[in-house]
Amino acid sequence: MVDISGLLNFTDDVSNFKLYESEWVPKVVKYNEELKKKIPAEYQIDSSLVPGDLDDSTFSPIKFLYDNKILSKREFEITDTPAHLLVEKIASMELSSVEVLKAFVHRAVICQQFTNFVMDFFFEEGLKKAAELDKILKETGKTVGPLHGLPISLKEQVGYGGKITTGGWVSNIENVLEKDAVTIQVLRKLGAVFYVRTSQPQTIMHLDTDNNIIGRTRNSYNTLLSPGGSSGGEGACVSFGGSAMGVGTDIGGSIRAPAAFCGCFGLRPTSRRISTAGGVSAAGGQESVVAVCGPLTRYIDDVELFMESYINSGNPWDIDPWSLRIPWRKISAPIPQNLTIAVMYDDGVVKPLPPIERGLKIVVEKLKNAGVNIIEFKPIKTQEAYETVNILYNCDGNEKQKSLLKPSGEPLLPLTKWCLSFGKGDKPLSITENRNLNMIRDYLRGLYLDYMVNNKVDFILSPNYPSVAPSHKEGPHYWGYTSLWNILDMPSLTFPTYLYQDPSIDIVKDASYKPRSTIDEIEQIKYDAKSAAGAPIALQLTGRRYFDEEVVAAGKMIDALLKA
Amino acid sequence: MVDISGLLNFTDDVSNFKLYESEWVPKVVKYNEELKKKIPAEYQIDSSLVPGDLDDSTFSPIKFLYDNKILSKREFEITDTPAHLLVEKIASMELSSVEVLKAFVHRAVICQQFTNFVMDFFFEEGLKKAAELDKILKETGKTVGPLHGLPISLKEQVGYGGKITTGGWVSNIENVLEKDAVTIQVLRKLGAVFYVRTSQPQTIMHLDTDNNIIGRTRNSYNTLLSPGGSSGGEGACVSFGGSAMGVGTDIGGSIRAPAAFCGCFGLRPTSRRISTAGGVSAAGGQESVVAVCGPLTRYIDDVELFMESYINSGNPWDIDPWSLRIPWRKISAPIPQNLTIAVMYDDGVVKPLPPIERGLKIVVEKLKNAGVNIIEFKPIKTQEAYETVNILYNCDGNEKQKSLLKPSGEPLLPLTKWCLSFGKGDKPLSITENRNLNMIRDYLRGLYLDYMVNNKVDFILSPNYPSVAPSHKEGPHYWGYTSLWNILDMPSLTFPTYLYQDPSIDIVKDASYKPRSTIDEIEQIKYDAKSAAGAPIALQLTGRRYFDEEVVAAGKMIDALLKA
Repeated sequence: MVDISGLLNFTDDVSNFKLYESEWVPKVVKYNEELKKKIPAEYQIDSSLVPGDLDDSTFSPIKFLYDNKILSKREFEITDTPAHLLVEKIASMELSSVEVLKAFVHRAVICQQFTNFVMDFFFEEGLKKAAELDKILKETGKTVGPLHGLPISLKEQVGYGGKITTGGWVSNIENVLEKDAVTIQVLRKLGAVFYVRTSQPQTIMHLDTDNNIIGRTRNSYNTLLSPGGSSGGEGACVSFGGSAMGVGTDIGGSIRAPAAFCGCFGLRPTSRRISTAGGVSAAGGQESVVAVCGPLTRYIDDVELFMESYINSGNPWDIDPWSLRIPWRKISAPIPQNLTIAVMYDDGVVKPLPPIERGLKIVVEKLKNAGVNIIEFKPIKTQEAYETVNILYNCDGNEKQKSLLKPSGEPLLPLTKWCLSFGKGDKPLSITENRNLNMIRDYLRGLYLDYMVNNKVDFILSPNYPSVAPSHKEGPHYWGYTSLWNILDMPSLTFPTYLYQDPSIDIVKDASYKPRSTIDEIEQIKYDAKSAAGAPIALQLTGRRYFDEEVVAAGKMIDALLKA
Repeated sequence: MVDISGLLNFTDDVSNFKLYESEWVPKVVKYNEELKKKIPAEYQIDSSLVPGDLDDSTFSPIKFLYDNKILSKREFEITDTPAHLLVEKIASMELSSVEVLKAFVHRAVICQQFTNFVMDFFFEEGLKKAAELDKILKETGKTVGPLHGLPISLKEQVGYGGKITTGGWVSNIENVLEKDAVTIQVLRKLGAVFYVRTSQPQTIMHLDTDNNIIGRTRNSYNTLLSPGGSSGGEGACVSFGGSAMGVGTDIGGSIRAPAAFCGCFGLRPTSRRISTAGGVSAAGGQESVVAVCGPLTRYIDDVELFMESYINSGNPWDIDPWSLRIPWRKISAPIPQNLTIAVMYDDGVVKPLPPIERGLKIVVEKLKNAGVNIIEFKPIKTQEAYETVNILYNCDGNEKQKSLLKPSGEPLLPLTKWCLSFGKGDKPLSITENRNLNMIRDYLRGLYLDYMVNNKVDFILSPNYPSVAPSHKEGPHYWGYTSLWNILDMPSLTFPTYLYQDPSIDIVKDASYKPRSTIDEIEQIKYDAKSAAGAPIALQLTGRRYFDEEVVAAGKMIDALLKA
């Protein structure tokens, strides 16, 4: 294991074991007892089929699901149908909302047995809603909206009216919100069916998913590995097929790390296009690095389905004054010959590991063969961006985080200590210092914009993380490959390459490599070719601010090339 | 005079008379000598025609201009042509850019003699540019852009490459910027001709215009009155016809107060539609109340010309990553019968004075007669909004302002002491406090949005200020009628009613009125029916965030009604 203790900048440990044990552990126990009851028993596989050493084995739940034909043929057909086709089949009454929901619930329940991704489950409610939708369609011949009958999973942090919303903090374990978050209101209006809310880490600031309420979530490709975070419950669920699509949030990589580690698509849209209003978080009123909300999907077209329906039919600006009134422009996939993609092989801060190097090389080759103009991206102040964004995350001296951790005195998980140590740790900045950092941020945004405009670069292709998913015992420490696009607020699509880590190929060849820095060393040491077996290899495509549509359209083109 | 000394919350006076006198006054003298040389003598009227007691008389430069036919018939024709028709005449070569520029320069020079609005003048440069544009048009048959040949005035604070940009701070009196601000780059690309940069107050935070560099600017309708601020130079210039349109900025009313006091149009667009990047200000990196840039014009259609060309042909997002990529939607003027307008007769904090009450009444009557559905707007937390925005303006404890005032030690003007006393004055807030206020702000935004959506209210009609322009010796103190829309970030159009203060009608009838608060008292006491003679009466139309197009379209409809 990597020893990061020397780097911890977080001095004020708010843990209070006595208080936690006596007052809060009983609540956590009760929460889990309730949760257990919510998972429909009829869909569970026999517990003897679930290995006892999931946390220590490279077991693949996804492989298990297909190899053992755990679902019926019809259930597989339904749950493997892309969402944009599912809504068509429901709209034409080829499938009922109820049948679709049941198939996904079956799959979600099995996923839960292997990955422990569920924070909340409400099958009956979902079923009732699906039946209502079926009835409306039958009676009126019309759908209520473009997502009519679609089962969608939700990161638990997104506030759900009438239900507990913890955001992963034990102190919120009885926090029942009155109102649905804006995104839930919008999706509900569009016809979505809800039934499962998914886990996130303590503080919502790990690129992994572990909290003191339900514990650790596992990767559906390899249970030894991290599912990524903070939307790691979504990563596990969506990639396993436990929902037709999922909703995550991202302030430093929280949609893209799970999508990358679990091998699905994840879009971090430009800020303010998909609403984050009404969620539980420590970033309220923080405007230096704005969190975003976005979809995780198994199919690229479903990213577009989400964005287009949400924006064009959802009119979020009618309920959230922060939602930009920019219609989603439906544009077709670009012609490869017309594109210039700059490739970031290495950000200059942390060197990518063998599987990512291989993935990049293969994808670039395919793009070149298709006629895309490929140029090399030479890192532009990536170190400065990394340092700046890290200071900005904690510039309130962790005051808000502490106010959420302190009441329960819950123990701090290793990655919590890590994220609370970013930047200046517990030392609050002054407003003037914060403003000066905002100006540095805007200067960096200007540099990247100028680079793209002056060099006619349409997109930047890069890793999401130096490697594939690390073991969940260590978790990911370096955020720079994703947080770069947060500080720049540029839309980024994480996509699967359909390549997987191979312990026989993806071995470190240059044993003499001298890490550039401690953070580089941490990530280099952590990589273990053997334990990462079968981990999805993903990459990230980034476009200009507010050019989300172009990013998704190019994602379609690239996906077609990679699938060909 | 109103005594505000008891309200001053600004303890740390940075004035340093000794330093200022010895080091900076000579620079100010030199600046003014240079400036004097820049004003083309051939266009000036004989100084005997300019009253010596302008600062103490209700003299109207505009009336003087027309009564005495100071310009030639042709010059009047040109400078009284709305900008959107001027650009057509230039494009069709009916008028040359050079002739148009000369006519506006003539008018601007006369305006300067009465109002002292100029911070920088460069006729030769403008002439060279105009000649170039004429040549290009003649040779190619094409304009360079939709503003080809249009003379535009610029608030001096907007950074101009290669020229001194002070922003009204003496310490900046030798500050030569390398690069043009984004807005200048955009307008230049569209074919605008620049020749004059206009004054703003010390700190850019008065709703009046007075600084220690060129002194006080006067109102072109009545030289005893304030031209408004902070874009007061623009107010004086545009309303007098010294430019075809002008560019101002607004963080609390700085476009709308000058437009209102000087009787022209002023649009405060939603933030991030017109770029403020590259200007000199004390608000760099401040994101709680975002300053905006927008046009001042004499004709409503020219507001649209500015917005549409700037956004749709200027593509500011290619040079400023903060510029929203939202095309300007050209929509036609609405049908009155389809509109609901809520009228704020009084914000509940400061009671409007007689001329504004009369203006509102007459305009509402006309709207009703035209078929508009009028409802009364009952103030929604206006006091809380006023207090919150005032705290946010100074939440850095005035650190940035002090860093701009201190180097020269320039004396603080009365309205500088006033604005530095807003909120908590010199006491800096913590980042956590700042974030909490941002959340209050967003809560308020939600309330107003809900009000408009739930009541199907299209627009809110309100005063810009409790009264018409106050005397420049007192200046305006209450910002609430304009700053409300800044904290809410809702687009607001200030428009002339074509009514003017009349000392015989607009007298205070209720002598027994007990002011609600000190700020109310300040504004009530200040009003003097006699000295405000002829002051334009203006109102303000506000729409939903990002509904700038609807606001301008409704402004057209209202203007047609008022002119009819």
